[in-house]
Amino acid sequence: MIAGIIGAAGYAGAELVRLLSGHPRVSGLSLGSVSLEGERIEGIYPNFLGAVSRPLVRPDEVVAASDIVFAALPHGVGEPYAKACLDRGISFIDLSADFRFDHDEETYAAWYGKGYAMPELRERSVYGLPELNRGRIRELAAAAPVIIGNPGCYPTGATLGVLPALAKGLASGGAIIVDAITGITGGGREPQKAFHFPECSDSVTPYKVGGHRHLPEIRRNLCEAAARFGAPAPALVFTPHLGPMNRGILSTIYIPLAKEWQAAAGGAPRPPSKEVAEKAAALKRIYEDFYRDEPFVRVLPPGVFSATNRVRMSNYCDLSVSLDQGGDTLIVASAIDNMVKGAAGQAVQNMNIVLGFDEADGLRALPALF
Amino acid sequence: MIAGIIGAAGYAGAELVRLLSGHPRVSGLSLGSVSLEGERIEGIYPNFLGAVSRPLVRPDEVVAASDIVFAALPHGVGEPYAKACLDRGISFIDLSADFRFDHDEETYAAWYGKGYAMPELRERSVYGLPELNRGRIRELAAAAPVIIGNPGCYPTGATLGVLPALAKGLASGGAIIVDAITGITGGGREPQKAFHFPECSDSVTPYKVGGHRHLPEIRRNLCEAAARFGAPAPALVFTPHLGPMNRGILSTIYIPLAKEWQAAAGGAPRPPSKEVAEKAAALKRIYEDFYRDEPFVRVLPPGVFSATNRVRMSNYCDLSVSLDQGGDTLIVASAIDNMVKGAAGQAVQNMNIVLGFDEADGLRALPALF
Amino acid sequence: MIAGIIGAAGYAGAELVRLLSGHPRVSGLSLGSVSLEGERIEGIYPNFLGAVSRPLVRPDEVVAASDIVFAALPHGVGEPYAKACLDRGISFIDLSADFRFDHDEETYAAWYGKGYAMPELRERSVYGLPELNRGRIRELAAAAPVIIGNPGCYPTGATLGVLPALAKGLASGGAIIVDAITGITGGGREPQKAFHFPECSDSVTPYKVGGHRHLPEIRRNLCEAAARFGAPAPALVFTPHLGPMNRGILSTIYIPLAKEWQAAAGGAPRPPSKEVAEKAAALKRIYEDFYRDEPFVRVLPPGVFSATNRVRMSNYCDLSVSLDQGGDTLIVASAIDNMVKGAAGQAVQNMNIVLGFDEADGLRALPALF
Amino acid sequence: MIAGIIGAAGYAGAELVRLLSGHPRVSGLSLGSVSLEGERIEGIYPNFLGAVSRPLVRPDEVVAASDIVFAALPHGVGEPYAKACLDRGISFIDLSADFRFDHDEETYAAWYGKGYAMPELRERSVYGLPELNRGRIRELAAAAPVIIGNPGCYPTGATLGVLPALAKGLASGGAIIVDAITGITGGGREPQKAFHFPECSDSVTPYKVGGHRHLPEIRRNLCEAAARFGAPAPALVFTPHLGPMNRGILSTIYIPLAKEWQAAAGGAPRPPSKEVAEKAAALKRIYEDFYRDEPFVRVLPPGVFSATNRVRMSNYCDLSVSLDQGGDTLIVASAIDNMVKGAAGQAVQNMNIVLGFDEADGLRALPALF
Repeated sequence: MIAGIIGAAGYAGAELVRLLSGHPRVSGLSLGSVSLEGERIEGIYPNFLGAVSRPLVRPDEVVAASDIVFAALPHGVGEPYAKACLDRGISFIDLSADFRFDHDEETYAAWYGKGYAMPELRERSVYGLPELNRGRIRELAAAAPVIIGNPGCYPTGATLGVLPALAKGLASGGAIIVDAITGITGGGREPQKAFHFPECSDSVTPYKVGGHRHLPEIRRNLCEAAARFGAPAPALVFTPHLGPMNRGILSTIYIPLAKEWQAAAGGAPRPPSKEVAEKAAALKRIYEDFYRDEPFVRVLPPGVFSATNRVRMSNYCDLSVSLDQGGDTLIVASAIDNMVKGAAGQAVQNMNIVLGFDEADGLRALPALF
Repeated sequence: MIAGIIGAAGYAGAELVRLLSGHPRVSGLSLGSVSLEGERIEGIYPNFLGAVSRPLVRPDEVVAASDIVFAALPHGVGEPYAKACLDRGISFIDLSADFRFDHDEETYAAWYGKGYAMPELRERSVYGLPELNRGRIRELAAAAPVIIGNPGCYPTGATLGVLPALAKGLASGGAIIVDAITGITGGGREPQKAFHFPECSDSVTPYKVGGHRHLPEIRRNLCEAAARFGAPAPALVFTPHLGPMNRGILSTIYIPLAKEWQAAAGGAPRPPSKEVAEKAAALKRIYEDFYRDEPFVRVLPPGVFSATNRVRMSNYCDLSVSLDQGGDTLIVASAIDNMVKGAAGQAVQNMNIVLGFDEADGLRALPALF
Repeated sequence: MIAGIIGAAGYAGAELVRLLSGHPRVSGLSLGSVSLEGERIEGIYPNFLGAVSRPLVRPDEVVAASDIVFAALPHGVGEPYAKACLDRGISFIDLSADFRFDHDEETYAAWYGKGYAMPELRERSVYGLPELNRGRIRELAAAAPVIIGNPGCYPTGATLGVLPALAKGLASGGAIIVDAITGITGGGREPQKAFHFPECSDSVTPYKVGGHRHLPEIRRNLCEAAARFGAPAPALVFTPHLGPMNRGILSTIYIPLAKEWQAAAGGAPRPPSKEVAEKAAALKRIYEDFYRDEPFVRVLPPGVFSATNRVRMSNYCDLSVSLDQGGDTLIVASAIDNMVKGAAGQAVQNMNIVLGFDEADGLRALPALF
Repeated sequence: MIAGIIGAAGYAGAELVRLLSGHPRVSGLSLGSVSLEGERIEGIYPNFLGAVSRPLVRPDEVVAASDIVFAALPHGVGEPYAKACLDRGISFIDLSADFRFDHDEETYAAWYGKGYAMPELRERSVYGLPELNRGRIRELAAAAPVIIGNPGCYPTGATLGVLPALAKGLASGGAIIVDAITGITGGGREPQKAFHFPECSDSVTPYKVGGHRHLPEIRRNLCEAAARFGAPAPALVFTPHLGPMNRGILSTIYIPLAKEWQAAAGGAPRPPSKEVAEKAAALKRIYEDFYRDEPFVRVLPPGVFSATNRVRMSNYCDLSVSLDQGGDTLIVASAIDNMVKGAAGQAVQNMNIVLGFDEADGLRALPALF
């Protein structure tokens, strides 16, 4: 089986190369680039020397040579390739935002600056968060080739952290706050001042406060989940930060609890009471139950908090579930590797679902703590 | 003027050595240690070689030799030194939590595990956050030697970020969320697994969720400020994180806005509207006005978000003031250097106030971005 | 096939767990610990949660349950386990220094503080640097179970960088200088001041100058290679450094060239001349030829210098070959991942050789640049 | 006294702003930029907000407004400003390479690609390494305004590490090897792939092996010192590396010892003998004596090795002096802060000498270990 990658020279593309090279069902790669066509992948990424040696070809050559195509391109340019794939009878997994908003072109256009070139493609597209949409992905893929709108990195970590609370009636419906921090690979391969080592090492800063493009995507996910489970649609506040690490997103999520889930809080703040501890344990069990069969979501044992280095290089999303001292806010910390579960790994997971492979194929490497 | 430091071998103590060595009014240092008495400071910190060369003496020798004494000791052991200073007629600046809770021994005991040994010392002590208590510090110090309860690192950054909102009636009274991340120096000089380079580099993790000792201190500050300004006392949710940097605390603070300060929000999330931008600008002006005369608080211009490397090695607290996309949550990002404004620098600032020096003496070094 | 690991709780042990979990010929693991027996591996390394779940058992239980045993223990304690393995008819791969010096007990004792407990075990042991000893490993393993003295991390990178120069008569016989820097995982899992994040981040320092235990191991390798190839035995100067990174060793190696390989140098220093460039290219080709069939040694193309992030998480040793401006010193930069080719990966490579597997089994994961 | 800075927007310029703002003899700054004229310094470096607030003016305005001028410009463009300063009767301190080679235009041109525009300016210029040329700087400045060719970062650390060996007859005259690693600020403010956080964090790599522009500068210094002290002129091998830190250069320097300074070495490598230790101590004493009166060179006590974090933010050069195990190579590790002693700090030191201030004025801040 040949897997094609358009946009192989970017970081998400290179991570696809790394993961697909070890995939037991993938026998070869076709690598393409719009801007670096003709260069060799191992020239751009000498870490691949001796293992992956291939020139970057034109996108249409990738489409022609592949059994499935991944696109890791800027927003707004991939639709023609998606169409070409469907026309050729193969599926297309898109890592840009172009297919994440389904028929809601208005929201997409408001945040990404232009509308759909081929709105009709959304008939065959589905938002590829398996923990939310696995059934729908399978159903659609059973009938014909599909387009996967692979989720954004922040939306993946945030949505997985909130989903059980909405599904199981834990949330009061009050505003949910997602405070997240990403490693610098999240900014991509292009050197910029914000990602220049001396400007970002040893420092933390928020950015795009109140206006990051992943906000509407997270919000859409929460609303859809709320609707599906009959929960009230929550408001969302989302603040992304940049942290001095290569990989990883840690999202700390604050969910106001429904009355029945709150623990009684005294007046003055005191260390967590027995009642708070018991409520927290009960909430954790609900998360565990919800994700029991998920291969890539781990609800951590008591006393262990999510850390990005514990999911590094893996497709896991780790969730630690806590209760605030006051007893009325659920605090979920969600950790993913932004390049794996937040991008290339989830794309491979989607490929596995679409093609009927074992969902963990190519994604079994253990996290590297150090 | 001789400044004494008890606990000079720890990180806060060493930072006091660094700052006081450059203080124009300090002519000499007396350095003490409980556990490392007899060792030399430049043996423990070879970075001081050639500049500060001194053996660590017994705490009582420090008290006897000094015109003012700083203590950077673990919680619960410093009261006798405080008393000894008052008895000698000199002031005592305590970097532990022992004098941060004034007469509220109950809260202190609940979080720190034991009560006060000499409760009567609180007659002469004051919580040393100058932006909140400058007048009270001056008043007390004018009469006789004082004890300063130097604020905790998280409480400093968090309180300064919330103060204007409470003082100027911006806050609705709903729960305030403080999501903060600290550099590893926050953990002190003692090697531990959590601070072992391979376990914490290139990673972010929360810790003590719902149960950090700085929570009651922040809460107390907010309640006191609310009371002073006639605002409703807010609930507080506080989550500390550990980040892969040496210095700095970035606190992202979510404050539910009072109705009159909210911007109208549409249904679907959209990039910040003109109304949101204008409200945000108005809120920022209020912060600017509030801190206009403060030497160490900077309200950042539009588009510049607080970053820990912009306050590195300085006593500044930087605040960026934003409005969430939905228009009803004020998002303040507060950055301090945890070792300076969050510990040793604020202690020096307090000394300057107590002794009637210029408040910025010894604290004028510019932040080092890189 | 069950692989056993004694000392699974240390960093090298955990890296063996990570690599062997993905080995196509390994069906199960038996994990042992001397000091943490009874604890669970996923309790110590929560990154393994959901993937590897196993209690740590006694070393003798590991020996009894395994088809091959790895030991990642401190120096001087593993010989009884080696003997137990041979007695049981299985091979033993030792990551300590105990079997690296063959019959030269005197040198071992001089540097490691005590002699061999069971010197006779060296009849069945071999130094496991495949690029130097593959034939001998195979030969010995063909006859009966063997003991592998898995090389030290610095000796691996240094020896591979010098080998072709000795084998092909490039070296003058003058002193070879190895200037190397390691990531902090090289110091192991135990927290220490030198590895405490605030003490080692953002800094570089040499250590054990003139007296590191890996010096005699490198020297022995160079002398053995020199003898084998009829080259003069060089003196060796070796300086290790500690750098602010998790993984990786970069060894910059200075080899005085034999007269016939030198390029003519003018008096004043000038940018590399055409003659220098041509000589450098010729030297590089010799390195390429020497390592042509090695699966894990890559001689880099012109203009690409070895970097530790290009071998990260892989078993590769990257070599860049240059000539100094003066034309008489060969400068080889050698990069390995200290935890993989420098420890656990090379141990797996040795297992593959001993058991007749494909030498790259379990070691095909591509390096992760970021 | 007004100090002018042309090129204030670059990293060296910003560091000059930081240091000169705390200089007791400097009452004001005039900041200029060729490319960013009109912008404000605190807009480019928001860390300066509230402390330094000034627009960047044209270079000629800086010259007109200042009592001394620093230039932190690219190579090859500063000569007209130097001339303008001399014409105005003020001194000019140049941080580029333009005035580092005195009358040796040929070497300068070979490495920097073009010759001098105004060769006659070298009549009034001097290479500003105070430890080598203090007398000459003073002499020249006593007569009239001067031009200082402020040394390169690598040459500063390397030369200071070798100087005593040449001056005191320790060196055999054999090739000296300088293996050095710099923090990323050494690459300047302009974002580039090599300095993009994900490409350089957590990694070490050599660069420009055999062809770095600082090689001829170091070589010139060594030859000049050798000539001055009657020592044989050594060959030089120099390899720069890039390391994942903000500031600092660690140069590990290998100096072949003259026969009389060698310690007897046995055949097999053994841990350092008593004789080696005694010789090492004697060599260290020679270094101590040589630098006894230097305010910014520290020869470290036994067992303490130079580390870049021990000189961070300071003008110190730390030297640790060791003997290799074989007894015939002196190993000096030299640590500087590349932005201070390696650039802006040394420039201020030169200003102090030129203007007759105390040489440590503005440079007394203690190093910040963390």
